[in-house]
Amino acid sequence: MPSPTSPAVRPPLRLGIAGLGTVGIGAVKIVQRHADLLAARSGRAVTITAVSARDRTRNRDADLSGYEWETDPVALAVREDVDVFVELMGGHEGPARDSVMAAIAAGKDVVTANKALLAHHGQEIAEAAEARGVSVRYEAAVAGGIPVIKALTEGLAANGLRRVMGVMNGTCNYILTRMESAGLPYETVFEEARQLGYLEADPNLDVGGIDAGHKLSILAAIAFGTRVSFDAVALEGIGQISIDDIRRAGDMGYRIKLLGVAQMTGRGLEQRMTPCLVPASSPLGQLEGGTNMVVLEGDSVGQIVLRGPGAGEGPTASAVMADVVDLARGLRLPTFGIPAAELATPIPAQAAAPASYYLRMVLLDKPGALAKVATVLGEAGISISRMRQYGHASSEAPVLIVTHKTTRDAILFAIAQLPATGVVAGEPVALRIEEV
Amino acid sequence: MPSPTSPAVRPPLRLGIAGLGTVGIGAVKIVQRHADLLAARSGRAVTITAVSARDRTRNRDADLSGYEWETDPVALAVREDVDVFVELMGGHEGPARDSVMAAIAAGKDVVTANKALLAHHGQEIAEAAEARGVSVRYEAAVAGGIPVIKALTEGLAANGLRRVMGVMNGTCNYILTRMESAGLPYETVFEEARQLGYLEADPNLDVGGIDAGHKLSILAAIAFGTRVSFDAVALEGIGQISIDDIRRAGDMGYRIKLLGVAQMTGRGLEQRMTPCLVPASSPLGQLEGGTNMVVLEGDSVGQIVLRGPGAGEGPTASAVMADVVDLARGLRLPTFGIPAAELATPIPAQAAAPASYYLRMVLLDKPGALAKVATVLGEAGISISRMRQYGHASSEAPVLIVTHKTTRDAILFAIAQLPATGVVAGEPVALRIEEV
Repeated sequence: MPSPTSPAVRPPLRLGIAGLGTVGIGAVKIVQRHADLLAARSGRAVTITAVSARDRTRNRDADLSGYEWETDPVALAVREDVDVFVELMGGHEGPARDSVMAAIAAGKDVVTANKALLAHHGQEIAEAAEARGVSVRYEAAVAGGIPVIKALTEGLAANGLRRVMGVMNGTCNYILTRMESAGLPYETVFEEARQLGYLEADPNLDVGGIDAGHKLSILAAIAFGTRVSFDAVALEGIGQISIDDIRRAGDMGYRIKLLGVAQMTGRGLEQRMTPCLVPASSPLGQLEGGTNMVVLEGDSVGQIVLRGPGAGEGPTASAVMADVVDLARGLRLPTFGIPAAELATPIPAQAAAPASYYLRMVLLDKPGALAKVATVLGEAGISISRMRQYGHASSEAPVLIVTHKTTRDAILFAIAQLPATGVVAGEPVALRIEEV
Repeated sequence: MPSPTSPAVRPPLRLGIAGLGTVGIGAVKIVQRHADLLAARSGRAVTITAVSARDRTRNRDADLSGYEWETDPVALAVREDVDVFVELMGGHEGPARDSVMAAIAAGKDVVTANKALLAHHGQEIAEAAEARGVSVRYEAAVAGGIPVIKALTEGLAANGLRRVMGVMNGTCNYILTRMESAGLPYETVFEEARQLGYLEADPNLDVGGIDAGHKLSILAAIAFGTRVSFDAVALEGIGQISIDDIRRAGDMGYRIKLLGVAQMTGRGLEQRMTPCLVPASSPLGQLEGGTNMVVLEGDSVGQIVLRGPGAGEGPTASAVMADVVDLARGLRLPTFGIPAAELATPIPAQAAAPASYYLRMVLLDKPGALAKVATVLGEAGISISRMRQYGHASSEAPVLIVTHKTTRDAILFAIAQLPATGVVAGEPVALRIEEV
């Protein structure tokens, strides 16, 4: 082995950390608390040369007095005495992008937790890094503390990947499971989440599925050897999910999750981040609160499920520092598992693979109402697997339908025809049932 | 990066595969089916030079005509045209050990699925490999297709590990969950499992917890930086678990699993592979059939749960070939994550950490019977958390007790005193309740 035996014989690995929010401070704490452990496992000491953040005066929960301070992250990124630039500022333009590109140009390895940056500029970054002979690592960018990038890129490297799925936004899963357990409407729980600090400054990043979509696009690139194509992710947030849907789905044995699915089909690469029904008894269905879960399906291994904390100081810093230890150990890989130049440009699938759907609608108390709905579905080529009608005191009755496998186009077509029947009140809700 | 960009510029990685059972053939199939994928991900071609098995004439489910044949695995291990020796024969003495040591001495990297070999000779192998500058990798040895060695050694490298747990013998979990779902006694399901080919030739390796204990001892070595010490694993099999216990535990909200637990405590390294009760609603409690699950707990990351197939051709070969791809990519680590010379000799904990216990006994229908039992428990310092008495037509009544946290010694002391009360029929059953 290239002598990784004694920390004494190899020079320390020197970090420059840009961004001293929760994750940055978490990384600093690990370097300080686990100096011996990191040295033993890395075969060399891991040290911090300098740090950078917007506000130097802010009180932070760690002693930074031993590190140099850079106001400009780009200046930090190119310091001669920094081996690895650790980017924890966030944002896919501006300082994050500039400093990462500067670090690469200066021949530094990069560790980042920045999913947006990779989702938007992954190809450019990978090409630059590989041309310059440096590594860009980002375990913390997807599913926080869960070592999913490693599991997919290395652990399943001998598999043709079939499908990658995941609940990768803890805030959305918190909101959905809290709505269910407390019987509260979306708006109330959304406000709770905001007050608890669970939401991004732009909450649509969370509840609109964008953050989770960024993560899915990164996993898809690795899994299928394609260029990151976040723009091709079909995004749908959780804002339209009602407590009624959660309860009715539960009655039918399902739970609603904001589920990301990426799969390579005969029609191209399918990437979706949408609310789906999954069986309540499945690992995904059983997932509570802010926990994340990623499901990897390979042709040899079958199904691997990874579960853990998707955010927070400790878990995210754990992932950041795992990347640092890998670099200290000398493990080096192309950014997305194969050389950037070999990543194919994916053809986005124009339609999602067929699936069963959950349909909820309210029928007016008119003779033959149900028959009329069934006729519309039949004309759209949709057959009904299960149906449940709820008795109501009023003149309107909620009806639930679980269809056999059909296409999203057929569902949309049917929904468009329903108003003309004159028996449906309000807007029907259609949610995909994912086979997990 | 050290130019992993083009398969053309790096020579192929040449394998010698010893052992052509299920896993060996599975590995051959992956090399044949995924030549392009392996080359793209490894940055070089992966080829097979030669294979070895006891019986050349046996009909195998793969075309081996392109490979040289070695009758002697040691001869295969030292061939000049082999870069990586893949040991898939099994057994911790004889050909497996001899050929692995020969491969190391000849400067070959080694990939093995052999948990017994590492549990018994891990230190010797690690020292030899590191002295010779070669790698020994064994992802397939623990939990089949789940990339748990990688998750622990690399993914959680920045964590102080607190506890490692797992259901790591699929056959035992199959037997326990099948007993529950079919309402069948242990002996019947054991026989079923034998006929289905789920059991090792020596079934005690499975149901006695030995195989799972091997795996636990390997995980403990990595997690706590200690020499593998399989002899210090407290082993208890599932043979004494009755369908009654499974049902009663279920009534109290628990399921029974053959659970491995390793943790470093103030009293030393604790390693147990024993039947335990776990909450039915926990990921471990929800695990069905032959699936494996490993739970890793680190001081930064919190709890990570990995779930997947623990055996079988595809999953195990997936893990073997992941190790091969790692070697092809040039990833090299000390065998147990830190240099073998730095692995500490663990002090085995003399007693398991305190826990709640499940006690089942049958009381004779005598006045004050329950009071007498409660008195014995009280005198042993055991307090009762919950109790349930089952009405019976006969003169004997099953009683279940869940204790507050206590020690195993206290439980054993109390059980020893119970016969003298004259109110207990038969042997009481005591099972640990693990907090997961």
